[in-house]
Amino acid sequence: MLRNLRRIGSIVPTNVNYCTHARNFLPQLTKDRYPDVKRGDYAVLNENHLFHFVDLLGVEKVLNDPSDCEKYNIDWIKNVRGFSQCVLKPESTEEVSQILAYCNEHRIAVCPQGGNTGLVGGSVPVFDEVVLSTELMNDVISIDDTSGVIVCQAGCILEALDQFLSEKGLMMPLDLGAKGSCHIGGNVATNAGGLRLLRYGNLHGNVLGLEAVKADGEIVDCLSTLKKDNTGYHLKHLFIGSEGTLGIITTVAIQCPPRPNAINLAFLGLESFEDILTTFRKAKQELGEILSSCEMIDAKSLDVSTGHCQLKSPIKEFPFYMLIETSGSNNKHDEEKLNHFLENVMNDGTVLDGTVTNEPGKMRAIWELRERITEGLLHDGYVFKYDISLPIKDFYSLVPAMLEKVGKDAVRVSGYGHIGDGNIHLNISVPEFRPDILRKIEPYVYEFTSNLKGSVSAEHGIGFRKQKYIHYSKSESAIKLMKDIKKMMDPNGILNPYKVLP
Amino acid sequence: MLRNLRRIGSIVPTNVNYCTHARNFLPQLTKDRYPDVKRGDYAVLNENHLFHFVDLLGVEKVLNDPSDCEKYNIDWIKNVRGFSQCVLKPESTEEVSQILAYCNEHRIAVCPQGGNTGLVGGSVPVFDEVVLSTELMNDVISIDDTSGVIVCQAGCILEALDQFLSEKGLMMPLDLGAKGSCHIGGNVATNAGGLRLLRYGNLHGNVLGLEAVKADGEIVDCLSTLKKDNTGYHLKHLFIGSEGTLGIITTVAIQCPPRPNAINLAFLGLESFEDILTTFRKAKQELGEILSSCEMIDAKSLDVSTGHCQLKSPIKEFPFYMLIETSGSNNKHDEEKLNHFLENVMNDGTVLDGTVTNEPGKMRAIWELRERITEGLLHDGYVFKYDISLPIKDFYSLVPAMLEKVGKDAVRVSGYGHIGDGNIHLNISVPEFRPDILRKIEPYVYEFTSNLKGSVSAEHGIGFRKQKYIHYSKSESAIKLMKDIKKMMDPNGILNPYKVLP
Repeated sequence: MLRNLRRIGSIVPTNVNYCTHARNFLPQLTKDRYPDVKRGDYAVLNENHLFHFVDLLGVEKVLNDPSDCEKYNIDWIKNVRGFSQCVLKPESTEEVSQILAYCNEHRIAVCPQGGNTGLVGGSVPVFDEVVLSTELMNDVISIDDTSGVIVCQAGCILEALDQFLSEKGLMMPLDLGAKGSCHIGGNVATNAGGLRLLRYGNLHGNVLGLEAVKADGEIVDCLSTLKKDNTGYHLKHLFIGSEGTLGIITTVAIQCPPRPNAINLAFLGLESFEDILTTFRKAKQELGEILSSCEMIDAKSLDVSTGHCQLKSPIKEFPFYMLIETSGSNNKHDEEKLNHFLENVMNDGTVLDGTVTNEPGKMRAIWELRERITEGLLHDGYVFKYDISLPIKDFYSLVPAMLEKVGKDAVRVSGYGHIGDGNIHLNISVPEFRPDILRKIEPYVYEFTSNLKGSVSAEHGIGFRKQKYIHYSKSESAIKLMKDIKKMMDPNGILNPYKVLP
Repeated sequence: MLRNLRRIGSIVPTNVNYCTHARNFLPQLTKDRYPDVKRGDYAVLNENHLFHFVDLLGVEKVLNDPSDCEKYNIDWIKNVRGFSQCVLKPESTEEVSQILAYCNEHRIAVCPQGGNTGLVGGSVPVFDEVVLSTELMNDVISIDDTSGVIVCQAGCILEALDQFLSEKGLMMPLDLGAKGSCHIGGNVATNAGGLRLLRYGNLHGNVLGLEAVKADGEIVDCLSTLKKDNTGYHLKHLFIGSEGTLGIITTVAIQCPPRPNAINLAFLGLESFEDILTTFRKAKQELGEILSSCEMIDAKSLDVSTGHCQLKSPIKEFPFYMLIETSGSNNKHDEEKLNHFLENVMNDGTVLDGTVTNEPGKMRAIWELRERITEGLLHDGYVFKYDISLPIKDFYSLVPAMLEKVGKDAVRVSGYGHIGDGNIHLNISVPEFRPDILRKIEPYVYEFTSNLKGSVSAEHGIGFRKQKYIHYSKSESAIKLMKDIKKMMDPNGILNPYKVLP
């Protein structure tokens, strides 16, 4: 393997801009905000432990100054805050293995952390867990431009990988707003979805292999780079989406599609959610294999981008908006299909206004309107965030239902998301966190979802904040089997405790 | 759920034609051919057990006449043969659950069986295991034409499902030669690949949910129909590809793509494997998103179809052939792309001759040339079959290497397969099984594969015949974790014993 082929972690701009507003305050400690969660029976970190870690990694890869540790203790949406006194930054799988073997022996709880861009409090400590950060594990190990397979360490930043692949005519099969900060290991550990799942499928399909370290330090080598390998149980899937509770992913092999020759992006204004559904159905029919993204945004969500983030919309105001992206191998063909589709939906009044472009700058500006909503919402104050899968016909019903429920307590109740995948991001922003508002929202929002057989976490995962609600989407038998697996793979429960399983 | 929406299992022709030649003999009993495999410490079936099964299912769903049981004891390529005295045909998940709970309590070994089209001896008993056949579990439970999700029982025949979906403008995301006989439950249990994996991805990406019964009879309900659901561990993947050793899949939910408006199929003749590689690379580049299949056949493999099966090739003889299929939403665009591509590869001499068609009858005739090779090979006598993934540049190197190894002992050493997925089917046919020839082939074929970091079973699975060789493709740490999982989920080892794990 070509280690250190190219170190790319540091060359990339951060796309997730921390709001200056949000930066200036420290959220309440998680242990105080959620007093019913009790610290597990883990060791309290002492000097001997620290000396051991320094011996193992060297002093520069062990942080234990509280101010150095602070940013690893707080999630970027300022929702949860732990008080870890120790951050470890291994550079290799072997170092991760040695850390975990030691922690398991000494019952030291460990919180794995990638880019810390998660939205459910999964990537920061709840109490004083040791943080194991993958930020120094950012080597691209190999890339095969015939098969399109990239092998890299878990700490590589998604956007950096995509830029690197672009030189080879390839692209990452996933894209999300946090791409400038999130780590590929975190993406895989949380089964991140994003903007192009509609076209390229999820990570269970795209991850060809991985290497992970179990709680006891054992390295599980499933690092296949083959598209097809039916030799025994497909273990990698245990780690994909288990949010660091079954093992820490250290290396991944990912199948990357060819970068399309032609990309076109339409931004549309519509009157109603019904019109969005009609437009989506027609897009599937007429754009077929070139449809690469289909997103919706309601007026209140777009207000965040145009207001708080001061971005400019290319069309006037409408109750709803859609982004429809095509990617293909022949621009003439793609434009013909797209123009034909747009003429149809505009002539019959389904779409009221729209703009279409293939200029990179203009496409980026349109995507920013969608991608910066999460960040912009933080300007409202505290945001209750929900990431829900619903049957497509019921997709938007959640937003008016929640508006009725929280009424004037909220600054904003808004929804946007991946209409093509049935996945809506519901945001309820309030001036500041209040338990009485939380009680108005939860568990109602989960009951509503469960009644429609939806998922209470479509792509963000369960993390810390949703584990009480997993039963709204999972059967008792499934939860029991999950617990059996956790017990088998991490009998001391040191890996990312208080997360995922109730 | 709409149970019994439509029973379709019986309306469909069988596509896998059992060779009359092969039909007329009984293969040696597995216990005699593989004397080093010892029967496990399971109960021997007695009258009480049978009475219990009859009580549970009714007499018509319990076979125990040896002649009735015979076809369930022999795999269709006549490679292995068990001597089970009992075949159970449950109709519901609940019946499967009751059977397994009883068998687990009484330590009765169980061999789950779908369409019995497997190629590695995974679907028939090794000794006297009770066969649990899914052939009566063939209800389509629901279909949603907006989301494209079909929910059905495990015993539905793949081709029947595809025909059913065609009425809704949808298609199954997988297609394989055995489609007329194989059950979708078996497809999922073996993570079947097939002819269009290149375009639609594997079953880990396409199965949205499933219901399975564990060895102790517990029903694990993971039957989500959502595209995105990140709530806890992604358990369904444990069952996908575990070949019935961790649980019996009873119901599946599958994401089905829209049926393409336009399909075109080219059949090409080429001089060398190098030219196949060049043609594949250009096809990926120029056909991009409409490329739906890319297969290769060597001359000796095509001889099987034109000789034993008496099919007619549309072009004259060449050392190599390719099938290139496109599927898209706009026939004019697709034909333009395909014609442009074909002109290029023929003008520069990469492709020597070819024919292209979009007439359904002619396309079927071309596909038959590819799909009937497996069946036709049985006319040669006994076939040593290998299903290997290799890095694409080394894809064909296996065939000349094996020819040199077995020399004149073989009737035929031939290779064909999914060049687009790096998966070759190597077949070495001999007049009849001989252990000395086997020793010339194995373990050499696996060592060869392992040295190139390939997979010793790309899509057929491990079954009975490959379990000794799993370590050529899987690390010790992975095999250890597999064993831990097996022990946790099936502590008595009653589910499909002697299969998958060494």
